[in-house]
Amino acid sequence: MFKLLKLRGERMKEKKEIMEIVSSMARQAGLVIKERLGGNFSTRCKGSPADFVTDVDRQSQEIILEGLKKYFPEHHVIAEENAFNDFSPENANVWYVDPLDGTTNFVFSIPFYGVSIALAEGGKPSLGIVYDPLRDEMFTAVRNGGAMLNGCRIHADGTVQTLDRSLLVTGFPVSREFKELMADAYTGGILFNSMNIRALGSAALELAYVACGRLTGSWEVKLKPWDVAAGALLVEEAGGMVSGIRGEPLELTEFVDIVSSNGLIHGEFIRALGFGS
Amino acid sequence: MFKLLKLRGERMKEKKEIMEIVSSMARQAGLVIKERLGGNFSTRCKGSPADFVTDVDRQSQEIILEGLKKYFPEHHVIAEENAFNDFSPENANVWYVDPLDGTTNFVFSIPFYGVSIALAEGGKPSLGIVYDPLRDEMFTAVRNGGAMLNGCRIHADGTVQTLDRSLLVTGFPVSREFKELMADAYTGGILFNSMNIRALGSAALELAYVACGRLTGSWEVKLKPWDVAAGALLVEEAGGMVSGIRGEPLELTEFVDIVSSNGLIHGEFIRALGFGS
Repeated sequence: MFKLLKLRGERMKEKKEIMEIVSSMARQAGLVIKERLGGNFSTRCKGSPADFVTDVDRQSQEIILEGLKKYFPEHHVIAEENAFNDFSPENANVWYVDPLDGTTNFVFSIPFYGVSIALAEGGKPSLGIVYDPLRDEMFTAVRNGGAMLNGCRIHADGTVQTLDRSLLVTGFPVSREFKELMADAYTGGILFNSMNIRALGSAALELAYVACGRLTGSWEVKLKPWDVAAGALLVEEAGGMVSGIRGEPLELTEFVDIVSSNGLIHGEFIRALGFGS
Repeated sequence: MFKLLKLRGERMKEKKEIMEIVSSMARQAGLVIKERLGGNFSTRCKGSPADFVTDVDRQSQEIILEGLKKYFPEHHVIAEENAFNDFSPENANVWYVDPLDGTTNFVFSIPFYGVSIALAEGGKPSLGIVYDPLRDEMFTAVRNGGAMLNGCRIHADGTVQTLDRSLLVTGFPVSREFKELMADAYTGGILFNSMNIRALGSAALELAYVACGRLTGSWEVKLKPWDVAAGALLVEEAGGMVSGIRGEPLELTEFVDIVSSNGLIHGEFIRALGFGS
């Protein structure tokens, strides 16, 4: 027993060291993103948005991937811009990297986007970071070690117990087929039974907001695993709950449908979404 | 003719002086809002949200109303927290004041809300301010004098010409009846024909974002006139377009349905919303 506890303590210490390395990468990537706004978010000139963002995405990803390669040369990486797909997610150490989550917001200069990095072991996130460079907010979580914002413990909202007092968030996928899924949810119960709904444009940062109680819950369909791996761990470690959109356990597959909440509203939330069980 | 031009020049100078007075009030009100976050948005403790916000709303409104009373004692004021309804909007000088637009966001600590102040003459906005205290962004417009962000001219987006490349924004009213109006719009063309949709939670700030090109357009139903009076002028003076949801001229009535855009997509936008003409 003592040996087990000691082992757990050591693993936690190791995770803290990994967290320091990775949060420093996220901050560095965030600085690059912020700098590309010309130092003045309000008045910067728009260049060619498409080129502009590809470039920033790429720069941010390079910083993170170089760091991961240096410190964790034997780990696998799945990233938005280029994936190394020769891995077995159930067994290996896999990093999920979204160098700029909320790209459309960034292109349009809407100040809501972030960097998302997660380590999954045996298919489950064990360490996650979501960094918001504009507000310098570093959300971090280690499995069984709690969730933090800039080093202070955060908790999912503990006061809202019903959907009608809940502030929810969602986003719309790009393809028509997937949009139809969402339209159905809207005309179902969720719009009428919740207090209100936001669509902020960054799934990773929205999950971080659920983790710190700024939102009661979120749902999205057809995300990529790098959009949610870090945020899902944040929500769980903050005392909230994540699942698939029918309440089933969340899995980091090619496309991810996710519901997150403070836990208290989760059942009512799933029923109101009406995707069936 | 010369006399007319001179008169117009004098009126513009007068408006600039009014703008200085009113933007200083907005900034002061914004500081109070920001201070109530405990100086550190990220880590402040939540008190009782309802009391908290009522108090901030009231403080912000007091600052603005006292200022308006001092400098424009003969003008009328219509404000969110308490309205003086003995006015004839067609003839009089009327101030529309929303001391904290995006109250729900503020209560939940979602960093997107602002102060909105407008002067309407003969029922039409002639001067408008939307102030975002978190990003210190002061959006201002004077009828026929252009729109500004922190003193620099801003323009509605001039590149997006079709709905399928447009980033739109909307919000959901609170009552079930009004929500049904919006659900219909969703299942209609707008979700499928636009690039994507946001719901950011502050109508005034969203209009300011349309004015500076961060959003291609916005639509909302059942707003109050103080939510839109300043933002509508911002959009028009930035070269965009505002109307009712059927394309009719916008009027500052008790409830306001509004569509705003960069102008280029306006017709297609109105048709896709499908509220009929």
